[in-house]
Parts: sequence; C-alpha cells; structure tokens
Amino acid sequence: VKALILFAHGARDPEWARPFHRIRALLNERLPGTPVELAFLEIMKPDLAAAMDQLIARGANAVTVVPLFMAQGGHLRQDLPRLIESVRTTHPGVTIAMTSPIGEVEAILQQMAEWIVAEYKT
Amino acid sequence: VKALILFAHGARDPEWARPFHRIRALLNERLPGTPVELAFLEIMKPDLAAAMDQLIARGANAVTVVPLFMAQGGHLRQDLPRLIESVRTTHPGVTIAMTSPIGEVEAILQQMAEWIVAEYKT
Repeated sequence: VKALILFAHGARDPEWARPFHRIRALLNERLPGTPVELAFLEIMKPDLAAAMDQLIARGANAVTVVPLFMAQGGHLRQDLPRLIESVRTTHPGVTIAMTSPIGEVEAILQQMAEWIVAEYKT
Repeated sequence: VKALILFAHGARDPEWARPFHRIRALLNERLPGTPVELAFLEIMKPDLAAAMDQLIARGANAVTVVPLFMAQGGHLRQDLPRLIESVRTTHPGVTIAMTSPIGEVEAILQQMAEWIVAEYKT
C-alpha cells in the first residue's frame, strides 16, 4: 500500500494548518483509497514518526513524504532526513521516499507568479 | 509608480532564497518596468524597510507586499502588519497594500495537489 505524508513546519496559530488540510482534501478527491496524513516539524501534531505509525497501521509499506515548504533550508537538508532515518530504523520494511519541496517546483512558481500578476493588476 | 515586494521568511541556507529570485524573474518578464524587490522577515537581507526605501528611491508610491508563506500565522498576523505600520509612519505618502499569503490561494493549492499526484504516480 502506497501512502503520502504532507510535511509542514507547524505554528502556534491553529489556522496555520488550513492550507495543508485543503491540499489533503484535494488529494483525497484525486487519489481515492490512498492514505494521506499531515505531519509537522514542530509545535503542531502529529510529528513525522506518529504520522508514519498511523499509515503503517493502515497497511502502508511505501510512503512518499512531500515537504510543504516554500524553499530548501536547514529543516529539509538536516531535520527531515534525520527524522526519516529514524523511522527507517524503526520500520525497516517500509520504503520511504522524499520529493522536492513544493517551492522548488517550476510549475508551482509559475502559478504563483501568474496569481501575483493578476493581484497587481486589480 | 506601482511596485511589488515579495516578502519571505529568510533562512541561514543561502540557497533558500532561490525560489523567490525565480518568482521575481518571472514577474520581471510579465511586468516589465515594474520594480520588484525581495524582503525577508529574518536572517536574510534586505528587511522590509530597506526594500521599501529602495523602491521609494526608484519613485514607487504604491507598493503591494506579497507574503511568500505557505500559510497564515503569527509572522503574517503580527510581525508583517507591524513592519508595514512602521514604514507607513516613515513614508506617509506611500500607499502600501498586502495580499493573502501565497499558500491561501486556491489556484496555487490546486497546482500543488496536481504536482503531488503526478509525483505519486511516477
């Protein structure tokens, strides 16, 4: 069973997680039957290990972690690989992959630029 | 003269700013003649006040600040409005507007979900 984790930074403001819940809802529509969990680096719950445990309990054995970050930085270069390594040690039977951060994806940057142009012109 | 500021968090990793430079390049193509500056909340330079000074020196009198953040949180609810208020006090002749954070824009979330689906399927 393949599954997805949307990995975000976390914040004190509970509304901060809203876009991530929205992306999960869009994925649930487009990938019915694929388990999708949110996970947070800090402050918010669950953390990566807890989200992974939940997915494994639902039968997942191949998990792709998608960093919902604007850009590559220390959190994705050091913290996330360390968290993934630790899950690999606990669950050696599970394949874990990691994508680029969302902010490094050209099509998404194009969409951002397009929206900014439209806002600027109104 | 209308101008834009792309406002991001900032990080120690210099590569972290790459997506923001890319968005600026895309805006320069689509809005030739419109000054676009990056500004950072912390660690990276320039900060909002310095970016604003630069734009005003180039004749800007209406500046739109676009938060390049994944979501709404304390930085956008408290820090950014405080920074904007302080610039308004220093430059009362300049109109300053602020858009939604990029992560609250439905078309951009749709694009993110679409990319995640494509990654998941490969």
